[in-house]
Parts: sequence; structure tokens; C-alpha cells
Amino acid sequence: MAEAGAGPEWPFDVVSGDEYARLSALYEPLTQAIRDLVDAGVRTGVDGETIAAAQAAIEEVTRTLNGRRHDRTHTLRHADTGRPLAWANPAVGLRNAIAPPMRIDRTDDDRWVSDFTLGAAYEGPPNLVHGGICALVLDHLLGEAASDGLTKPLFTGTITLRYLRGTPLGPLHAEAWIDRTDGIKTFARGVLRDAEGVTVEADGIFIMPAWARDAG
Amino acid sequence: MAEAGAGPEWPFDVVSGDEYARLSALYEPLTQAIRDLVDAGVRTGVDGETIAAAQAAIEEVTRTLNGRRHDRTHTLRHADTGRPLAWANPAVGLRNAIAPPMRIDRTDDDRWVSDFTLGAAYEGPPNLVHGGICALVLDHLLGEAASDGLTKPLFTGTITLRYLRGTPLGPLHAEAWIDRTDGIKTFARGVLRDAEGVTVEADGIFIMPAWARDAG
Repeated sequence: MAEAGAGPEWPFDVVSGDEYARLSALYEPLTQAIRDLVDAGVRTGVDGETIAAAQAAIEEVTRTLNGRRHDRTHTLRHADTGRPLAWANPAVGLRNAIAPPMRIDRTDDDRWVSDFTLGAAYEGPPNLVHGGICALVLDHLLGEAASDGLTKPLFTGTITLRYLRGTPLGPLHAEAWIDRTDGIKTFARGVLRDAEGVTVEADGIFIMPAWARDAG
Repeated sequence: MAEAGAGPEWPFDVVSGDEYARLSALYEPLTQAIRDLVDAGVRTGVDGETIAAAQAAIEEVTRTLNGRRHDRTHTLRHADTGRPLAWANPAVGLRNAIAPPMRIDRTDDDRWVSDFTLGAAYEGPPNLVHGGICALVLDHLLGEAASDGLTKPLFTGTITLRYLRGTPLGPLHAEAWIDRTDGIKTFARGVLRDAEGVTVEADGIFIMPAWARDAG
């Protein structure tokens, strides 16, 4: 993320857990269908005529969905947890087919963890995850850790990624945690792992924006 | 990228410029249609019944495209330039709806530049690009610069991103160049800009793999 957390610039609506569950049940299957289509687009080997027909059918669906369209992202917060509902976000968004999506949990020892699977659409070198996608998932997870699940206003100052070896496509695990805080700065760290161990390490410095410093 | 360039581990087929043009004309419109659908999925406000019908239609298209499917990414190289044809890559892939896509040019003074537009599907905080997407585009562009357009074998060792301010959604410009080389290490730098100036700076260290060091 470039900025994380709530602030006066970012209006949002609060929704109940039930409403959140209803909206998730509505949008998650649509998003998964689009995600599967993205994957098929990368790997299909059908003939030109079939591709043209697929394109026309997709364009028709897009016209239908755009029949009523929000001009901007509508930010919702869960009434019980105060956490934002990740709708559009390209790492965790329930409505964004670009997102793997990462589902993020907090452990009892304050680690933010996610297990997810990256397929063909995230490939850089053959059979390996694009390094920039490793950066995307780690940037997001460090931001979640630093901002306590996006409930504190912070923006990313600096992030450094160390690639120890290639990250294979398939099931992966990521973790992030706060290393220390120093005034307006929060130092977060994290790792991306496959079954064999760590593939990428990340260090990030997150900064509290000026408008939030007096809010205590 | 985590690794860039050609090597003995990465087999590829060489195709003519004409064949490349033919394949691009076949796949680009399909990919753009899927990209537009991803965007519609983030922003649609149609009712539940319409969403269910859209989902069913998308699943049918996916079944059709998966009727013939490549098990793995097929890497092609342009016969004239030697550069890989970016098919699946999530930053530049012509067949990957996740990719903006970036189209990358080399200037006369050896800068690698790209102008591209990021819409709703790349949003982190309201109206701003997700910081991890900034990392994705800069990681990719620095890799292109360090590897001379992915013609030299290199892998990313470390990349550091400094976020100067939020990057707005919309038209953006990125540049990368080689700062210096030192033995097996290539030091690349780059920036992401909006109309007002630089929003993110990047420094990367790219390393020649052991198998390529004797090849001269």
C-alpha cells in the first residue's frame, strides 16, 4: 500500500457483519469467475474463431455489469472490528480479480499471516512468481502489520525486498510483524515462504501522517 | 521480476516479426476485453440477479477457452531483436489481464521508459495506486534496464522503494536506467511520476547467475 488506515480524508460507511456476509456472498463468486477467466486467457490454446467469440461474449457481460457503475470505490468498515472491508484492493480485494486474493489472519503473538496460491497469471520467469508480485504481497502484508489491520493511519515511507531465491508458483505463505516503533515511525518486517523455506525478506518503514499526529 | 533474461534453463522458440504481429492481433483484443471485465467487477452496482447471470456467462466462456490449454507458459523470442515476447507476465504480458500493460521503450540515451494508465483495479487508498503495484511496475522496469531488455541473464538481488507521496490513479510515467556495474552486480535506478513529478524512487541490485558467469 502507499497509505494505510483510516483518516479524515477517507470517508467510509460502517456495515454490520451480516451485511458484510451478504455482500461477500454476492461478489466473491463473480470475482472468482473473472479470476478463472484471467487464468484461461493466459493459457488458452483455442483457435482464432473461438477466441473472437469469447471476446464478444466477455464484452457483452462487461456492458451488462457497467449498466450501473460506482464512480469511485465505496469504502466500508466492519461494525464489530472497525477493519476496512477490502473491496477493490489488488492484494486482498473481494471484488478485484487481480488479487490472489490474500486472506490475512492475526496470530496470538501479533503476527499477520496469509496462505495463498499464485498461478499462471502471476508468473515472471518460467514457473516462478514475478518479483514484483512478491513485492505486492509483502508490501501489503507489512502495511497490515504496521497499521494493526489498517485501523491506524500510516503511509509507507520505504520498503526493501531481498530476493534469496526464486519463488515457485503454487501455494505460498507470508508473514509480517512490527519490529519496533520510534516516534512517528513503525518498522515492520516480513517474509515470503514456499514449502522449502524463505524466498524473499522485506523491511518497511511506515510513517504516521501529519494530520494524525495530534489525534493521539 | 525475480529473474530476468535468457539462460539454458529457459527454453524458448524464436518467431518472426510477422508471426509476432499475428499472435498479438489475436490475443490483445481478448486480453483487453478481460481487463475491462476486471474493471467492471470492481465498480459494478447491478443487482444480484444480473450478477449471477454475468457469473454464469463468464464461467461458460472460461470453459470454452480452457477447451485447449497450454500446461505451461510458452516463451517466444523475436527473431530480429532477440527480446522475449511478453505473453504471461503480470507487468507487460500481452495475454495477461492483470498487466496494465506496460509498453516499454528504450530511449537514445539508454533509458527504459513506459507510459501507462492505472485504473480502479490498481487502487489501494481511495484514488491512489496501491504501493505494491508501484513496486510491481518499478521492479519490472528496473529489471528490463539491468538486463538490456531481458536479453541478459540476471536475477534481482535487492530492491528498495522510497514513497515520496501517494501516486494518483490515471496516466503515469516510469523510467529506469543502469546506474553502474561492478563485477557480477548491476545497479539500476528508476522513478515513477505523475504530471506533478516523482512519486516513488527505486534502487535495485541485479546479479548474474553462476551458470552465466563463464559464458562471457
